[in-house]
Amino acid sequence: MTTTLEQLETPALILDEQRMDRNIERMRSQVRRLGVSFRPHVKTNKCMEVSRRLMDSAQGPITVSTLLEADFFAAQGVTDILYAVCIAPNKIDHVMRLQDQGVKLSIILDSLETARCVVDRAKAAKRHFDVLIEIDSDGHRSGVKPEAVELLEIGRYLEANGIPVMGVLTHAGESYNCDTPALLRAMAEQERAAVVRAAQRLREAGMACPVVSVGSTPTALFAEQLAGVTEVRAGVFVFFDLVMAGIGVCTVDDIALSVLASVIGHQPEKGWTIVDAGWMAMSRDRGTQKQKIDQGYGLVCDIDGRPLDDLVMVGANQEHGIIAHRDGRVDGVRHLPVGTLLRILPNHACPTAAQYPHYNVLDGSSRGITTLWPRFSGW
Amino acid sequence: MTTTLEQLETPALILDEQRMDRNIERMRSQVRRLGVSFRPHVKTNKCMEVSRRLMDSAQGPITVSTLLEADFFAAQGVTDILYAVCIAPNKIDHVMRLQDQGVKLSIILDSLETARCVVDRAKAAKRHFDVLIEIDSDGHRSGVKPEAVELLEIGRYLEANGIPVMGVLTHAGESYNCDTPALLRAMAEQERAAVVRAAQRLREAGMACPVVSVGSTPTALFAEQLAGVTEVRAGVFVFFDLVMAGIGVCTVDDIALSVLASVIGHQPEKGWTIVDAGWMAMSRDRGTQKQKIDQGYGLVCDIDGRPLDDLVMVGANQEHGIIAHRDGRVDGVRHLPVGTLLRILPNHACPTAAQYPHYNVLDGSSRGITTLWPRFSGW
Repeated sequence: MTTTLEQLETPALILDEQRMDRNIERMRSQVRRLGVSFRPHVKTNKCMEVSRRLMDSAQGPITVSTLLEADFFAAQGVTDILYAVCIAPNKIDHVMRLQDQGVKLSIILDSLETARCVVDRAKAAKRHFDVLIEIDSDGHRSGVKPEAVELLEIGRYLEANGIPVMGVLTHAGESYNCDTPALLRAMAEQERAAVVRAAQRLREAGMACPVVSVGSTPTALFAEQLAGVTEVRAGVFVFFDLVMAGIGVCTVDDIALSVLASVIGHQPEKGWTIVDAGWMAMSRDRGTQKQKIDQGYGLVCDIDGRPLDDLVMVGANQEHGIIAHRDGRVDGVRHLPVGTLLRILPNHACPTAAQYPHYNVLDGSSRGITTLWPRFSGW
Repeated sequence: MTTTLEQLETPALILDEQRMDRNIERMRSQVRRLGVSFRPHVKTNKCMEVSRRLMDSAQGPITVSTLLEADFFAAQGVTDILYAVCIAPNKIDHVMRLQDQGVKLSIILDSLETARCVVDRAKAAKRHFDVLIEIDSDGHRSGVKPEAVELLEIGRYLEANGIPVMGVLTHAGESYNCDTPALLRAMAEQERAAVVRAAQRLREAGMACPVVSVGSTPTALFAEQLAGVTEVRAGVFVFFDLVMAGIGVCTVDDIALSVLASVIGHQPEKGWTIVDAGWMAMSRDRGTQKQKIDQGYGLVCDIDGRPLDDLVMVGANQEHGIIAHRDGRVDGVRHLPVGTLLRILPNHACPTAAQYPHYNVLDGSSRGITTLWPRFSGW
């Protein structure tokens, strides 16, 4: 029996399946054109039913941001997993448990300190670890610079201790701050050049370094060529969000995720409509705050997903959202009666989805919820 | 067998039991002094083991922010529950299911529109609902003004249709923006006076209005007297957080909740230490951004909970936190080796706790985790 949007209790997380499939096909087609393999990042969706549509095979490959994601997908038969956060010493036992389940779990690091820790544990446990070195291509957070002395020191130390460098990896997180096609293309090229240069230096020093991995949704979609790269990682493209729309990577009509909310009151002298979705339902993410268009805590659409009168969520408490016109007007704001259902597009798909135990999968043409897809959160 | 902090996998949510008990005793003692009853808000903790220490009896009373909280606590035997968000039409079936389980579930509303909806459903289902009217004491979000014509219209409409007004309720959310004892005391008095005045008007119009309910952690702790008030609600006091410390409601040493994180790398030329707790672990809440002291995404403490060298989390990605000195210095920042365990105090306890499936309950004197207390999230 199909449920309709009108039958759900609010707030609820809505996934427009047709939009999602269109987004997936766009990324797949781009990766095919670039001639590299695809290692989708499951951190955005944390859901088998979504990830299945992203993976080349039932065994993967995938990228994860937590070992809980690795556990979950390993239990579903995925065996080729890259954990793309520098390994912490207290997670190495967990990595070994996953190896014992038959998972080829690749780990990353960006310092000699961590390399020593991994080597010590490998020797003590008589284990092999698949290790990539993280490269800093844009100053965003982690990684060694492609030209850094430490890059070769780490590589040589690993190889001298029985751990061949499996590859190099980078994430151009700064691409989220590029907001023209030209800047996005340039950032994609910067990301590619940095990690290819790092691989070249390791190879010149005698290391094989077979894997050269790049990844971010903006750079993956705007890369013109990926010579020297072997794989692309990306995750948020599957749903997209207002941050991605704000930098021109997608349009608002591509956003597949929304939060269904009910109008529960008004403060007419302020032009406010109050809904039962606050920051717990939307997340506290204000990723559009510094963009050209600040979308508050989310862009307000009608029940069919059409943006409504330039209304945004201008404020949020734990379970209350304050909806108002973008320009702050008080007069002429449409009265949305108590009980009106709205769909609110999120700034950032990852933290919004993280608040919910499942996706209500929407047939956008009928308002019908065709199925529920479970998802998980935590560590 | 007791686990120690050193044996946990990071990130993990740590609850210092002694600090929590001290915070609870402070609130209980204040409520006793004020001579009102206490209806703790469980939205911060969402945990039976914590809430049990807050409740007057195993049956309650409690305040909830979602009907999932009501479901959970009802299943544990709590029968006196106030749902403190204006009721949405699509939640009334759920309210009736809770009534059928023997719960006295009070609902709130702030408009004639919602009152009509509730009356219609009460008549159709031959039900009674326990209804309070929400009062706007500070312009923060919802509620009718104490002097508004609509207050009496709503009251009369409900009573004329067989639903006596059970009471009035307000939440002085603006108290979070008061940052001196004098301002906090004044806001507590403003909250009290507004809701007492609303009750007086309803009573003068012939309605009994037995309940007069106020609630916010800052006003509850700073109220000098609550003449005319019958009950106080508050939730975040149980853990406190940096926002509460920033307005002077507690000290940093009172904060009972922290996130245990591991150092996973460095960017020494920037003065950065990278940890495996990002915004998913801390939440995106930046509630201290506009306070006198901006704590970034959290204040960094050593493993024993002592603030460390004025380090804060200056940036956060999904699973990465960037730790740096508050003043941005690059030189002279202490090197925290990879694997160092840090405890990071959150801006806002509610969204941080919401990311985790349980509390690791800490014996602060020994680094021992004495037990795990499960918690839940969602709707």
